[in-house]
Order: sequence, then C-alpha cells, then structure tokens
Amino acid sequence: MVPRYSRPEMTAIWTPEARFRIWFEIEAHATDALAELGVVPKDAAEALWAWWRTDPAIDVPAIDAIEAVTKHDVIAFLTWVADNVGDQARFMHQGMTSSDVLDTCLAVQLARAADILLTDLDALLAVLKRRAIEHKMTPTIGRSHGIHAEPVTFGLKLAQAYAEFARCRARLVAARADIATCAISGAVGTFANIDPSVEEHVAAKLGLTVEPVSTQVIPRDRHAMFFATLGVIASSIERLATEVRHLQRTEVLEAEEYFSPGQKGSSAMPHKRNPVLTENLTGLARMVRGYVTPALENVALWHERDISHSSVERYIGPDATITLDFALARLTGVIDKLLVYPERMDKNLNKMGGLVHSQRVLLALTQAGVSREDSYRLVQRNAMKVWESDGQLSLLDLLKADPEVTAALSPAQLEEKFDLGYHLKHVDTIFARVFG
Amino acid sequence: MVPRYSRPEMTAIWTPEARFRIWFEIEAHATDALAELGVVPKDAAEALWAWWRTDPAIDVPAIDAIEAVTKHDVIAFLTWVADNVGDQARFMHQGMTSSDVLDTCLAVQLARAADILLTDLDALLAVLKRRAIEHKMTPTIGRSHGIHAEPVTFGLKLAQAYAEFARCRARLVAARADIATCAISGAVGTFANIDPSVEEHVAAKLGLTVEPVSTQVIPRDRHAMFFATLGVIASSIERLATEVRHLQRTEVLEAEEYFSPGQKGSSAMPHKRNPVLTENLTGLARMVRGYVTPALENVALWHERDISHSSVERYIGPDATITLDFALARLTGVIDKLLVYPERMDKNLNKMGGLVHSQRVLLALTQAGVSREDSYRLVQRNAMKVWESDGQLSLLDLLKADPEVTAALSPAQLEEKFDLGYHLKHVDTIFARVFG
Amino acid sequence: MVPRYSRPEMTAIWTPEARFRIWFEIEAHATDALAELGVVPKDAAEALWAWWRTDPAIDVPAIDAIEAVTKHDVIAFLTWVADNVGDQARFMHQGMTSSDVLDTCLAVQLARAADILLTDLDALLAVLKRRAIEHKMTPTIGRSHGIHAEPVTFGLKLAQAYAEFARCRARLVAARADIATCAISGAVGTFANIDPSVEEHVAAKLGLTVEPVSTQVIPRDRHAMFFATLGVIASSIERLATEVRHLQRTEVLEAEEYFSPGQKGSSAMPHKRNPVLTENLTGLARMVRGYVTPALENVALWHERDISHSSVERYIGPDATITLDFALARLTGVIDKLLVYPERMDKNLNKMGGLVHSQRVLLALTQAGVSREDSYRLVQRNAMKVWESDGQLSLLDLLKADPEVTAALSPAQLEEKFDLGYHLKHVDTIFARVFG
Amino acid sequence: MVPRYSRPEMTAIWTPEARFRIWFEIEAHATDALAELGVVPKDAAEALWAWWRTDPAIDVPAIDAIEAVTKHDVIAFLTWVADNVGDQARFMHQGMTSSDVLDTCLAVQLARAADILLTDLDALLAVLKRRAIEHKMTPTIGRSHGIHAEPVTFGLKLAQAYAEFARCRARLVAARADIATCAISGAVGTFANIDPSVEEHVAAKLGLTVEPVSTQVIPRDRHAMFFATLGVIASSIERLATEVRHLQRTEVLEAEEYFSPGQKGSSAMPHKRNPVLTENLTGLARMVRGYVTPALENVALWHERDISHSSVERYIGPDATITLDFALARLTGVIDKLLVYPERMDKNLNKMGGLVHSQRVLLALTQAGVSREDSYRLVQRNAMKVWESDGQLSLLDLLKADPEVTAALSPAQLEEKFDLGYHLKHVDTIFARVFG
Repeated sequence: MVPRYSRPEMTAIWTPEARFRIWFEIEAHATDALAELGVVPKDAAEALWAWWRTDPAIDVPAIDAIEAVTKHDVIAFLTWVADNVGDQARFMHQGMTSSDVLDTCLAVQLARAADILLTDLDALLAVLKRRAIEHKMTPTIGRSHGIHAEPVTFGLKLAQAYAEFARCRARLVAARADIATCAISGAVGTFANIDPSVEEHVAAKLGLTVEPVSTQVIPRDRHAMFFATLGVIASSIERLATEVRHLQRTEVLEAEEYFSPGQKGSSAMPHKRNPVLTENLTGLARMVRGYVTPALENVALWHERDISHSSVERYIGPDATITLDFALARLTGVIDKLLVYPERMDKNLNKMGGLVHSQRVLLALTQAGVSREDSYRLVQRNAMKVWESDGQLSLLDLLKADPEVTAALSPAQLEEKFDLGYHLKHVDTIFARVFG
Repeated sequence: MVPRYSRPEMTAIWTPEARFRIWFEIEAHATDALAELGVVPKDAAEALWAWWRTDPAIDVPAIDAIEAVTKHDVIAFLTWVADNVGDQARFMHQGMTSSDVLDTCLAVQLARAADILLTDLDALLAVLKRRAIEHKMTPTIGRSHGIHAEPVTFGLKLAQAYAEFARCRARLVAARADIATCAISGAVGTFANIDPSVEEHVAAKLGLTVEPVSTQVIPRDRHAMFFATLGVIASSIERLATEVRHLQRTEVLEAEEYFSPGQKGSSAMPHKRNPVLTENLTGLARMVRGYVTPALENVALWHERDISHSSVERYIGPDATITLDFALARLTGVIDKLLVYPERMDKNLNKMGGLVHSQRVLLALTQAGVSREDSYRLVQRNAMKVWESDGQLSLLDLLKADPEVTAALSPAQLEEKFDLGYHLKHVDTIFARVFG
Repeated sequence: MVPRYSRPEMTAIWTPEARFRIWFEIEAHATDALAELGVVPKDAAEALWAWWRTDPAIDVPAIDAIEAVTKHDVIAFLTWVADNVGDQARFMHQGMTSSDVLDTCLAVQLARAADILLTDLDALLAVLKRRAIEHKMTPTIGRSHGIHAEPVTFGLKLAQAYAEFARCRARLVAARADIATCAISGAVGTFANIDPSVEEHVAAKLGLTVEPVSTQVIPRDRHAMFFATLGVIASSIERLATEVRHLQRTEVLEAEEYFSPGQKGSSAMPHKRNPVLTENLTGLARMVRGYVTPALENVALWHERDISHSSVERYIGPDATITLDFALARLTGVIDKLLVYPERMDKNLNKMGGLVHSQRVLLALTQAGVSREDSYRLVQRNAMKVWESDGQLSLLDLLKADPEVTAALSPAQLEEKFDLGYHLKHVDTIFARVFG
Repeated sequence: MVPRYSRPEMTAIWTPEARFRIWFEIEAHATDALAELGVVPKDAAEALWAWWRTDPAIDVPAIDAIEAVTKHDVIAFLTWVADNVGDQARFMHQGMTSSDVLDTCLAVQLARAADILLTDLDALLAVLKRRAIEHKMTPTIGRSHGIHAEPVTFGLKLAQAYAEFARCRARLVAARADIATCAISGAVGTFANIDPSVEEHVAAKLGLTVEPVSTQVIPRDRHAMFFATLGVIASSIERLATEVRHLQRTEVLEAEEYFSPGQKGSSAMPHKRNPVLTENLTGLARMVRGYVTPALENVALWHERDISHSSVERYIGPDATITLDFALARLTGVIDKLLVYPERMDKNLNKMGGLVHSQRVLLALTQAGVSREDSYRLVQRNAMKVWESDGQLSLLDLLKADPEVTAALSPAQLEEKFDLGYHLKHVDTIFARVFG
C-alpha cells in the first residue's frame, strides 16, 4: 500500500481494527447459533454482545503482544476478548478453526472492497456518459496504427469506454458473488465439531452465501477469479489512460488533463503540461495486473490447505483493491475535467488533404464498374501524392485531375464523397446500443 | 502448440483451412445482407454460395503466395476467392475492413474452443461425481500443512474438486458469452460504409451477439477476460493434480495414477511408478497461466486500434485452448482410472496414535468446565508425547492415565471421543450441497 | 511456435532430429569415457561412432512408435539406436539416467540458441551504430510525457538503443554461461553408478561446464535466469519498437518503416502506411515476457526432481528463443531500412514557437540575479501564451516584450538562448561514451 | 510493504527521510561540481554543506504540504531546503532536471538494498555450509517424482542449495552493478545546461558509475534486470522451502522447523506442528515473482521518458527488496535451527524392502551378459512384488529366489549390490566442487 495511491474508505477496510471487528462479529454470530442449538449457554452469546454494545476500542497492540507469545493470531484475539468479556467468553469459537474466522473475514473484506469498486465504476460510468453525450457529435479523426483512418466523434470514443467499463462492472458483480461465501466448517471442513446450521446463520447475518464444501479453507479459485477480474479492469483503465496520453501529445493536442493554476509541469521546463495522471494510471494498471499471477498461484494449496496463500493475501488484498479504487477515482477525475479541444480535432481531421475519405472513393469506383484492383490502384496513386505532400495537396483536386478516375466518376460525384456527415450517420444507432 | 499436448478436435479449429472457411462464411453472409439492402447484386451473393456448395478445397499455399506479395492476409484471401468465383466476387467485402473479418472469425474460433472446453469440463465433472460417490464414505486423513489433521473421506476430496470445476464451468460460460460477439462496422467502427443491419445478419447466422460499439476491432477486454478465465481453470487443474502427486508419494501412497503394463517408470530404476501425468498437468497449468498476462497487456490498444494484439493471439489463441483441452482430458483420464487404496488410507489415518481426535477431547474438556487455556495445555502435553513417539504411544491411553484429564472426563467419555463416525456424520449434508 | 514468426536456423535447433542427434552425441561421448575407464568394452564405443559416421537418418516416426509403447522417450531412443547399431549398443547409457541425456541436451540447445541470439544482437548493434552515426547531428525534438521538451538528435536516440542492447548482449552472455552445464550424475546425482570423469569428458566435448551438484536434474534456477534475461531483451525491443510507432504517427511522421511497392496498408483505406512491423514487435515482446513466469515457477521442483518443468520447457524452449530470434531480426530490418525525415523533425522542433528553449531563459534569469521562483513565473507566463497559441506566437518575441524579463536580460542575451547548437555540444561526449 | 514481513534496516532505506537525505547529497555534490566549474559561487555549495553539518531534521510534513500546492515533489523539496538554507540555495539544481535527482536516488537506494540482500545471502550461505558439512554423510532417500529413488545424504541436499544460492549471489552482484548508475544529464540527457563533469563528480561521491547515455531518465532495462534477478532468488527460496515442507509431512518427518515452547500450531488441534515458516516463504516468493512483470513492462517508456514507471517503482522498490530481505532472513533461521531426524531418514530409506538398490542389480545383470531388455524385465518383476507388498517383502530375498537372476549373479554378488556406502562414495567429490 502506497499512501499517495490510497483513499481512506478503502484503506479502512484493511486496518487491523476493521479485521478484528469482523472477527468478533463472526465469533459472536456463531456463538448465537451455538446457543440456539444448545451447545453453549445462551448467556455466553449474550455476554459477547453486551460487551460489544459498549463499543469497545480494539487494542491492537495488546493483541499483537499476545500473538508475539502464542504465534497464532486468532488465539491471540480470542485471548484478548476473553480478557475483556470474562469467563463467558470461553464458549466462543467452539468447534471452529482459525480459518473459519480468517476466511469468512476475508470474504467480508473483499465484498466490501468490491462494493466500493462498484460505486467507483458507477461514478466513472456516469462521467463517461455525460461527456460522451456532450461530445456525441464532435468530429475527430479515427486512427488505426496511430495513422489517420476515417472520422469518428469524440463521443464515440467515450461511448466505447462506457461500454467497456459497463462490462467490467458486470464482471465485478460476478467476481463479488464468487468470493462472498462463508465457511464455518471446522478443522477439515467436515462439520465434525460444529453443526452446518451455524455456518448458515453466520452467512445470513453477514450477507454471504454458504460455501458448499470447504476444506478448512474457502477454495482459492474464488479469490483467483476475483483478482483476475481486477486485473482486467486495470487493463481497461490503462486503455483509456493511454488514449488521453496520446491525445495530449504536443503534435496532437486534442485533449488535455486539467491543469490547475499552482501546478508545475517540470522543474526545468516551465512550458510543460504533461499527462502525468494518465501516465500514473498506466503504472498503477501494471501493479494491479501484477497481482493476478500470485493469486492464480495461490489456488493449488496442498491437501486440505497450507498457509502459503496467507502472506500473498496480506499484500494483494489491500494493495490490489486500494490501488484499483484510487485508479478508478483518478480516471473519473481525469475524464470529468478533461479539457477537450474540438477546433484542434477539426484541424487534425483536415490536415491530411482529404485522405480520410479515400475509402469512399474506392467504393464509388467499384460501384461504378471499375474492378476492385483497379479502383485500389487509382485511389492509392493519388493518395500517395497527398501523403508525400504532408497534406499540402488535396485528394479531391488530384482525383478530379485524374482522367482514369473522372472516366468513372463526375466531379460532383467525387465531391459528394468528401462529406463528413456521411461518417456520422450511425452515431445515433451506436449510442442507442450503448446507452439504451 | 506442442503436438504431444494437443488433441485433434481443438487443433482443427486453429488450422489455416478452418480460419479461411470462417472468413468465407462471414464474407458470404455479409454479401447476402448487402444484397438484401440492394447495395450489391443478389446474384453476387448467390455466386459465392454456389461456389461454396461445390465444397472447394482451401488452397492455403496459394493464398500464402498472394500474401507474400500483398503483405495483407485478408486481401490475399479475397483475391484467391475472386480467382475461383470470378467477376461476381468483386462485390464481396463492400464497406468492410479486414478486422471485421478477423475479429469476427476469432470470436467464432474462441466460441467453438469454449464449447469443446465445456464438453471437457462436463466429462471431468461426470468422472469426479462418479468417483466421489464411489468413495463417499472411504475414510482418509485430512491434512493441513501436510500434517495430519482430522478424518475426512476420499469422496469429500473429490466433491470439493467437483464443486470447484463446476464453478470453473460457470465462469467459462460467462467468458464464452464475453467473446462471442460480431463486429462488421468498417474502418473505425462507424458503419460509414456498411449498414448496421449487415452486422446483425452475420451475427445471427454465426450464433454471435452484436458488438455494441467497435473501433475497427472488437475490444480486447473481452479476450483478456476469456484468457484470464482459462488461467483460473488451469490453476484448479493444478490443485487437483497436486493432490494426486501428494497421494502417490512413497510414504503416503493412498492413490496412484493408473500404470499400464508396457510402461517404464525410469530407464534406471525399474521399480519406479511415478505420477508423471499429474506432474505434467502442473507444468501445463503454468503455461496456461503464463498466457494471461499477454492477454491483459493486449487490452490497451492505441486509439481505434493497433495490431500488437494480433501476434499475441496467434500464439495464445491456439496454445491456451489446445493446452487446456489436453489438460482437462488428461485430468479426466487420471481421475477416471485412479487407483485408490482404502486400506492404505486407513493405515495412515491410524498411524498417529489417535492424535486426530485431539480436538474432540479439547472440546469435551471445555464443556466439562475446564478453562480453554487449561484444556489446551492438557491435551497438548499428552499429544506431544504421542507425536514424539512417532505414533507408538496411544493418545487415548495417555489421557486415561492423566489425572488432570480424568478428573474431568471418565474413561468411557474419553473412548467415545475416538469414534471415526463422529467425523463423517455430515458427509451427506455436504454431498447434498454439491450434487443436489 | 508460430511459423510466420520463425526463422529456419533457430527452428532447426528444436526439431526432434536435432534433439536425437544431440542425445546420440551425449551417449556416445559418455560411452567413450566409460570405455576409457574400462567399464564398457572399447569396441562398444567404437561401434556407436562407426554407425554415426554413416550419417544415418534419424527415423523420428520409428522412435515415436516405440515411445508409444514404452511411454518413455529416452528408452525409446536407446531401443531404436540398438536396433540400428546392434548388440554393442547395450553398453550405452551405463549408469546414466534419462535426465543426464535430457538436461545436457537442453543445455546444448539453449547454448546454441543463445549463440544465434548473440549473433542477432551483433547485427542489431551494427545497424544501430551505423544509423546512429548517420544521424549523429540530425536535430529532433526530445519529448518527455509525449510533450516537447528540448532538442536532441536522432543519433542520440539510436545511441541510447545501442547502449541498451549492448547491455542486453552482456546479460545474454552471462545467461548463456548459466545454462551451459553438463550433468551426467545418475539417478539422484550421486555418481553412484557412473564416475564423475564421464561427466567431465562429455562436458568438454560439448563445450559445456560441469554441473557442480545435480539432483538427477540440472537445477532450474539456471533456466529461470536464462528466460528472465530473454524477457528483459524483449522489453528493450518493445521500447525501440514503441519509439518507431510514435515517430510514424500521422501528426509526427519523423520516421517510417520502409514501405515496399507491392504492400497494401489497408484493404479499405489505400492511403494507409502503418507501422505494422513495430506493432508486431510489441506483441512479440508480450509473448517472450509471458514465458518468464512459467520459467520462474519451474524452479521449485520437488525433492531431487519432479517432471513438471518438462512440459513447460517443451513450449518455452522453442517459443521464447524462436520468437526472440525473429523479433531481433525484424527489429534489425526495421532500423536498417527506416525512412528518416530530418525536414519533418526540424519542422516539429520549431512548431512550438521556441518553447523548447524556455529552460535556458529560466537559467539565464536566475544567473542574472532573479530569484528562482520569479524566474520560473516570468518564463511560464510567456510560455503559456505561446502554448495556447499553438505555436503561432514566438517565445523570443514575447520575452523581448516583457519588461520584467528585459530588466534582467538584453535582447541579444535573449537571442543567444535560442541557439540550437547549444543543445548539441555534448553529443560527441555521449557518442564517445557509447561507441568508445 | 507488510509490517510483519519487514525488517528495519531494509525498511529504513525507503522512508521519505532517507530519500530526502539522498536527494540533498545529490544536489549538494552537484553544486560542489558546479562551483568547481565556476557556474555557481563556491559559497553557495558551502552554504548547503554548512547547513547539512547541523544535522537538520527532515520535515517531511512540511515538504508534503508544499508538494500539495506545487504538485511536484522535487520542487517542493528544493523550496523547503531554500526555506532553511536561505538565499544561497537558489544555485542548487542549476541545469538539472528532477529525474537527475530521482533516478540517481533510486540507484543509491537499490544499491543499498542490494548490499543488504548480499549480506543476507552470505548469512544464508554460511548456515547452509555449516549444516551441509554437519550432515555430509547423513544418509537419506533421494526422491524423484516424490517416489523413492536411490540414497543421497542430507548434506548433499544442502550442498545443492548452497550452490544455488551462490549462483543467486553472483547474479545479484551483476544486477547491482546494472542499477548503480548516476545520471545528471538534464532535461533530455544532452547535458545542454550542465557539464558532464558534474555527473562524474556526483557518481564518484555516491559510489555509482556514470550512465553512458540517459534520456532524462536512467533506462529501465537496468531495473527490469534487477527485479527479474530478485524474482529468480525468490524462486530458489521457494525451492528450498518446498523441500522443508515435504520433509516435515507427517508420513515423512525427516526434518522439522524449530518449534518454540509457547507456540500453538492450531487453535483447534493441539498436536499440530506445522511448517508455517516455509509455507509463508512459498507465499512471499509468489509476491517477489509477481513484481517482475511490472518491472519488465516499465522498460518501454515513451520517447525520452514518461512517468508511468514511477508509480510502479513506489510499490516494487520497497516491496520487492523488503520482502526478499525478510524471506532470506527467515529461510536462514529455518535452516539454522532446522530439526533433523537421521533415524527417521534411515527408517524411510529402508522401508521399501531394498528397492532403492534395484538399479545396481540391473547394471550387474547387464554386465553379466544379460541383455538390457531382459535385465530390466527380471528386476522389474521382482521389484513390483516388493512394491505391492508395501516394503514387507525384501528385494534381495526375491532376487535370490529367482532362477533367471541367480543364473547370472551369485547370492554373494547380489548381496554386494545392496551396500549403502556404494552410493555415497562420491560425496567428497561433490562437496569439493561446491565448497572448494
């Protein structure tokens, strides 16, 4: 966790205090269920909640000090609770194993983290939609391979991003469901010492589903899928960030990250206005992706479990969710305040001397009966002249002057092929598909 | 693609012939739709299908030879088709761009690959279910950290695997839906030169959904999610393979891969019977996982597209699906024919002098009024003696001889805690959860 | 292995024939050493070489057919050799284990592959040096964050790449040494059944060093380091490829991949000249990087060995080396024939109205006694006007008209700060550092 | 950074204070060199050092507060220093760019981190050597595929680990040299505003070499190689950790992690003594490996630099080095205090009824004139009976009773083949190779 790439709400999920609070709730709900079954006295469960209602501070250093002796975190916690609650606390954790607490707690933490990320995605989607509609009909050049292709609109670029993040949202909903399970099944998952109804009770109280079959631990394919999904979302962030970085290049400059008055782009070069936020997002995406493989390697635990996954999750649980939360919020801010320059888009669009319309001419020639091969040759030989003139020559002028072309198409027919509106006639259709 | 880790049905999807056949279908269906719109003559579309109905061989070397000149695969293919079909072929590909063909083709190939993988998973699930039920009540020791914990059944191990692969199946269904989209939207996705209805027609004919917004290419977050899902499945394969490898260890030997009569385990050591299939699966899992990151890196294409994803997909499209198909089939074979040794399981289960029952005693002491701390101490001091005797001493005997223990629990009460059936009483519940 | 990204010399290393030839040489050299020790008859060794001198074809299908029965590749090979050589062949492989052959063979293959890659790097370095010197003093704008910064030369860009690939070469030399070891140490590496002098003999004959301690297998940290090094080289390829892709963008167009006469950039847009080779290199780099993690996961084999590494190496041995060989050759070709446009570089350099000289003015103001903060403010306020004019205004003109500036610096002093030569005065120094 | 997996010395390298101290030294040394050149007043440099000699506390919150306004960390730092030093501080940073400070600082930090890791490796090597010598002749079964193969010694296992970590050490020395370079070359690396002698001076003072050609930044292939090397070391850690985990399995129990008196293995099962340290190391290895790919992705910065690498390095700079430092120290502790059970090793070695000697018999039969195929068949048919008896039958007895065997080998000859010493005769040779 890097403080400068962290936001408080997400970070709070991963504090020791938060973890201990969830542990307590799991233990206390389980004790309720055990009391209901008659396994432990009802007043044992009540004693726990009575203490909890006093809103006790979690004394993390005290718990850590106990762990330093026992070398076991859950036992340390139980000991500390017993020190506070008194004798009745001894009925806590009956028939349970540490992983019942640890894995169910992780499920709660990841589910909460997913909820924040879903909220982040909603905010991003809202901003993307607003700005997409704002620039629905702002023409700009579409580029393949970094080379001018044909006109699109800036709104279309954002609509694409909207559709992509909407998919990411659906994937995260599925990934959340995958990890939001509760296991209270004992040392090897057989419920030997605890009735399955305890698990059902705790699951219901914590908003989780029941893990159908656990083996001391909740199976890690669930977590692997969760972190893999975060890696996909991070890659989509990188895609949109890369788009902004390209648009802000000196020679392109069709859009810019918002540049605040006090900001300095460079200690040496005062004119610099750099796309540092989106470059930063590119780096953050690398990190979130980097956490995918350790999560995948965590799946193949030995037999009913080994603990190798635990250290990995102490890193990537916080790091992946905190980083992605920050990145989504940063991207939302970038898009929200993005400076968009339609005049520059228009200037760039026209700088190639009309080359972007070459395909329409190609099609028109074909439809006028010229063979596809000949049509291609005719367009290409004129296009290449425009290309080599760096946009000083006009494709339309050259075509009008090419007798082989004019034998098939009249000047008026040629002119009609250079109409920008032609390219934008289905923008409504696409927007309807994306935004409904 | 490594031939020895390939099966013919999956490999067939990725041959040049198969790709060209799909290309043709896309082009011909699109031409149908264009003819319906009146953009091209109806007999142009018919000419294509007429030729196709002659079941023409795909002359891959001829197409490659054309590509060597044009350096463009789709143009090479179209030229070859035109050479065969004749003049009417010039109406093909009207208003389309290469990626319309390439990306839609990839969608068809990945969807077909997913279908094979789903069939593979169904076969694996069937075998897991059969053998889980066969060994539903075969007791075996559950291990955490490689150390004996408490009894489970061998059927429970397989039920866990069943549940895990059932989750994998659901994930693959979702991933298949993610990549099964069709884009026929032209050079930058604006439908400038082709009506959206063409895309709808081709999608319907090929069993795909319409890509809501494409940018010459289908967005690669879809493929990233697909390959990430394959990586998760591979990790689950590694988990079950690792279990078999452990069970086959000389000192454990609770199960073995089937060993055929002609097989030689070692050129030097004739007695060796090695778990080579599951070790092989472990390696194959590493490969399928290794393809996840390139797929994630493919998402951030530049602007409306660059072609960096293409080379990656030429590798991982075949390699990930062919390897996973092979691995699933191999794992199915391993489980299907796995030699299971219940006697050895029983022998191992009993070798620790009853230590596996220590928790029950701990609980009984607690319930008899001994403090949790004291109970733990009492059990541990006797358990440690058994442990250090390498199972020569019996925990039950030692407990009966410990006055602090017998002050709380009678011999009969102690004996009752060493009943194996106690641990298996909820196996039915778990099987009902998993198999319904 | 993808045929279109493969070159014959590297591919030849990985054919079954090549592998079997190396196997034979290992076995025959070992038999020589065993004969020298008196363990086997001298004519047994001679019989092997006598047969070998007949230059026998390797009958791969025959060997495969034997393996299909024995399910063991080395035994299959030995059987086939025995079928050809006759009775004397039974002395072959005395005291050896399969891995002695397999691992030493892999060492030979990887060393040969490294030699080809080193030759590739030498060719790339030669081209980079030639073109760096050619453009040593071709001014071009240096960019940080994609934004114009200060002038560099195109030769400096290539000198940087030269230095980077020279480092890559040194790393590959080290990685080659790491994997070029020979192990002939028997079933668990104890030389129980074979004298260490056999290993020494074979190592010397094959140009390998002796593995100091093996455990049936050569330790896989060596191979991990090798493939990690290939991953670093691939990343450096991506860096230079990305530079070319940027330079070829329509708005930048300072350099272009060579465009051959018959080539078609787009089936739809005849004017397109796309940086497809360097985009392709970007994708290939992703693949070679993707092989690093499986190689790292291969290190932790169980005990004296398991065979999980083997399947991984059947993929990445060929795939990583063949792909990297192809990529290096392709990059060499791109740089060799790169179309460089100095006029366009000059035009871009000057398009920002002199902003690239802003830092010099900042320094001059500081040196003239203005505080750093004030200097920054003065330069920035003028620079921002130029920036917002899209290069239509001249920074020099604005500064000359700013009284706060002219209070510190005279017009002549200001003009001197806009001299391009100022930026290039240390190019010689840097070239001397890089090229000696 | 996870506190529980962190050690103070390594952590101290990565604090803001440490970073700012290095920044100051870079700036002050550079000012010295600038003063020497006459670019700035000598008393400006002296003023900086005079303040530094007062051992001023670094006021991190104050610097952060300035950065919150300027959004630029180096400018914030320079401003804070100027606030403390006074007017003379304005000569600091003349002609430099932020990356000169940041990248040279990172080089110092990584070099210091490497020094700690080298010390860690030395400690690990010393422990491995001591315990290898201690158990040089402790026989134990060698295992391939987890199956008993032939005898080795426990010392040989540790000697192998020693050789592996000695290689890791050599790689880290090379990787340290790769990143320990100094760049003070200005905004785009041309030394336009700063003489190369400044870089040489700072490099010499900080124990770095000069970066031959930088582009505002030090090229990231250096860092990629560094982090890839850490990933290899982590994988070697995983290998040895996995060995310990296997040896501690209940059924094997040939060695155990030291178990301290107060320690509790399980909250539920008091008898458990789990290899939690080495399982933990397995997880930590996954994390260090996971940082390799982001480091590789950092190489391809855009043009002369973008800042995407920076966020990645804020994570992996500390996380990879701190985690690896902790892991090396933990592994050293595990090996140092490892409980080794030679009697259990002996028991396991003998439990297979002499199967481990099967190869010697195979060889003896061959040498007695039996064909290889027949020898294999004879040994295998007896070995299989032993195998199936779970070690109750004796291979020697069965062979003595097999007429086809005794036709070739006398009982005395057979008995001689079952001598353990035969397998250990070259242990001295191997130790001499490894330890010299």
